[in-house]
Amino acid sequence: MSEKMTRRDVLSTGVIAGATIVGAGVTGVALNGSAEAKKMAYPWPYVKLNSKKVAERAYKDYFSGGCMYACFEAIMGELADKLGGAYKDFPFAYATYGGGGVASWGTICGCLNGAAAALALIYPSSNPLRNQMINEVMAWYERTALPVFVPKNPVKVDKSFKQPTSKAASPLCHASIANWSAKTGVLPSSPLKSERCGRLCADVAKYVVDMLNKAAKGQFVAGPQISDNANECVSCHGMGKQVGNIQGKMDCESCHPDAHK
Amino acid sequence: MSEKMTRRDVLSTGVIAGATIVGAGVTGVALNGSAEAKKMAYPWPYVKLNSKKVAERAYKDYFSGGCMYACFEAIMGELADKLGGAYKDFPFAYATYGGGGVASWGTICGCLNGAAAALALIYPSSNPLRNQMINEVMAWYERTALPVFVPKNPVKVDKSFKQPTSKAASPLCHASIANWSAKTGVLPSSPLKSERCGRLCADVAKYVVDMLNKAAKGQFVAGPQISDNANECVSCHGMGKQVGNIQGKMDCESCHPDAHK
Repeated sequence: MSEKMTRRDVLSTGVIAGATIVGAGVTGVALNGSAEAKKMAYPWPYVKLNSKKVAERAYKDYFSGGCMYACFEAIMGELADKLGGAYKDFPFAYATYGGGGVASWGTICGCLNGAAAALALIYPSSNPLRNQMINEVMAWYERTALPVFVPKNPVKVDKSFKQPTSKAASPLCHASIANWSAKTGVLPSSPLKSERCGRLCADVAKYVVDMLNKAAKGQFVAGPQISDNANECVSCHGMGKQVGNIQGKMDCESCHPDAHK
Repeated sequence: MSEKMTRRDVLSTGVIAGATIVGAGVTGVALNGSAEAKKMAYPWPYVKLNSKKVAERAYKDYFSGGCMYACFEAIMGELADKLGGAYKDFPFAYATYGGGGVASWGTICGCLNGAAAALALIYPSSNPLRNQMINEVMAWYERTALPVFVPKNPVKVDKSFKQPTSKAASPLCHASIANWSAKTGVLPSSPLKSERCGRLCADVAKYVVDMLNKAAKGQFVAGPQISDNANECVSCHGMGKQVGNIQGKMDCESCHPDAHK
């Protein structure tokens, strides 16, 4: 994939309008950081990224700043390298707070929190693409056996290591790790859990960048927005429906395995 | 509370070191926004805020940008008004992504996600105060009957309205709302749920600012960091303990009511 931006890359994103750096983007010249920070209008611009490069960066980032930082910095940092401007001055380190489901509380997986934060800088809430992409990556994360990313240079294992996978069945860190641990017999305190989570960051960051690249070409078509389990439950229990007593889109079965059984 | 900054306010925060705006802070002159954005070293500075003013701002913000935006913007926006600099240029609107537990998925309550994000801009991960404060506000949120904030001008009810309270027993949006709904008989689609969540934003933002103000005076002493329920469970099940099969700090009983009963 070419690292050089073309007029079409920039103009076809659908999100560049309003940004102050269009001129620089069109000429393919990345803005340089400077002592004075550059002000960029919100939402921030996006240009096509190499998703495999972003995945490697997220994997590496995990071992210095945890899962939310990894997904957030890998995407935003690549954009900073290409576009400069306010990206260069954004204190990416703030995103370390999301590690382990926010300060190790086990709430939302930091990969997903970081991915959503990045998407929210690129798309305003008024653009349906933002929530379509957040929904899609959350639903994909729930149902997919992960991680599948294989790093060039594994940090906690040697290159012959065969990475076990598991389905999180939930966007929550606590459930995601518990399900992985139950399937593999590996405890969360093991270096193998760090290896698993580092690779998971790469998978999520790559998935998000692949969606963003499609959208930049005007070719994004939203995938499943919610699991089949949740879809069945919210058809009655969701807000405004017949029962109408819950708010949420998480796969219900993860915490309510016996509901309606 | 005086709105004017004193030398002591600024110098006693323990987080101003490294920021580029110390000079302006010491003289009590807020930096002005300008066409060129101001670059600030991370972590960003904090000066004492009026927590009641922040609470009113969070309540109002909820109705335009949801819960994460409310807690984040109320704290950061007050700092922007006082300190200018990079605060002025931060695209607060990104935080709308956290509404309803991230794009209405029901994961972490957006108040807590926004509060943690704000704390993470003010304290780096290397400063123990960051996680002490995140832990404390999460544990307080779980065990406290909320909301208690009474707005000057209620949005969805009249001034005679008596706000019902409930304990979330979890940092998750889905559980927090479900428990409130079960106790009050009010469905999540009701305007009364919006009123409840708007007031909750005010409570959380105020709690965080009260902690930050104490820390700014060197008087912050961390409160409970985890619920009694969770503490009992993680003493065996937590990472590195005898069973060692879970990662997390959420009140376990909310999702596992029958464990060890």
